[in-house]
Amino acid sequence: MEQDVLLKNNLLAERNRGYFEARNIVALNFLSSPGSGKTSLLEKTIPLLLGDFPVAVIEGDQQTTNDADRIHALGVPVIQVNTGSGCHLDALMVNRALKEMELKDNSLLCIENVGNLVCPAMFDLGEAKKIVVISTTEGDDKPLKYPAMFHEADICVLNKTDLLPYVDFSASRCRENAMRVNHHLEWFEVSVKTGEGIEALTGRIRQMVKDR
Amino acid sequence: MEQDVLLKNNLLAERNRGYFEARNIVALNFLSSPGSGKTSLLEKTIPLLLGDFPVAVIEGDQQTTNDADRIHALGVPVIQVNTGSGCHLDALMVNRALKEMELKDNSLLCIENVGNLVCPAMFDLGEAKKIVVISTTEGDDKPLKYPAMFHEADICVLNKTDLLPYVDFSASRCRENAMRVNHHLEWFEVSVKTGEGIEALTGRIRQMVKDR
Repeated sequence: MEQDVLLKNNLLAERNRGYFEARNIVALNFLSSPGSGKTSLLEKTIPLLLGDFPVAVIEGDQQTTNDADRIHALGVPVIQVNTGSGCHLDALMVNRALKEMELKDNSLLCIENVGNLVCPAMFDLGEAKKIVVISTTEGDDKPLKYPAMFHEADICVLNKTDLLPYVDFSASRCRENAMRVNHHLEWFEVSVKTGEGIEALTGRIRQMVKDR
Repeated sequence: MEQDVLLKNNLLAERNRGYFEARNIVALNFLSSPGSGKTSLLEKTIPLLLGDFPVAVIEGDQQTTNDADRIHALGVPVIQVNTGSGCHLDALMVNRALKEMELKDNSLLCIENVGNLVCPAMFDLGEAKKIVVISTTEGDDKPLKYPAMFHEADICVLNKTDLLPYVDFSASRCRENAMRVNHHLEWFEVSVKTGEGIEALTGRIRQMVKDR
């Protein structure tokens, strides 16, 4: 039953992948718990990237257009997908959103998934890379407790390093735990609030778009 | 398909409810995003309750026994349920765990669900009350973006009030948002770290056990 759902999703994800190839679009799937700072990270990084290439955003949430409103204020194309009771974006939702957007060739598409460190790990959207965001307030054993997400991700961004003095969290222990689950994981540490580490991450995203 | 799963779960949840009634056990289902501080909240509150009645804990996580190890250190009975790829506890997992534990009559059972602000909202476990925990680092619009959980919950605990000076979060706005989704919600604000507000919450739990 679940296998059937996943199989159908995988087929449509490949269709999305073909769409992105045809248009030379790099799609990134941003995943995290609610409140890790995915939207804030996009608000911080997108203005730094817009000088190099066009950017568009698909926002996933159960309800509200709050996140799309925040991205819209940056002046980039954005579409909000509300999943209702659904706990993840799937490839069909993304496929439909693609058709409603005016995506530019040779651009970057950021897909912000529903805040959920579990289910979205299983649903390929056709993205080039999965970026999992965690924050320093969530406990440094999260990669071990939710291994599926960290196993599937290509890049891990530890956010809210500005709060490290106030919380019982070891960035190095978190990194070790993440690497135990997936030793291919690329690791970045940032504070969206202070801007620390953001340049390294945007540099990596620029490189992905250049290498495509 | 999904309806069928939920229907079966609801039946078994009622069986659990009957089990709790027969043994005069108050069961509380603790729900939140990963890292909101459910386990820390139990570590803080359980020692304050043990003088009044026995307490036992069921811990849900995809992987690891980290949380059960922390609860075990309190000297109370605890069982860890690992859901693997599963994103929530269901009534069958709880029913099986009940049979493996030595629960005392006239006691409190705390069930810590998998960290997930979405899926566990749909799965009744037979509990007396659902307690959703959010933290001040998660954004005060969370109740609007994940309304199902706040609609189903009986009590909302806002944790990490000690971090309020360092984050852009309004406790009153969060409360308003939560009340818009569910005006019956009981609201508590605590800091597990400093102990602020914990006495009010444990007082409410004592009252629930007394009123049963």
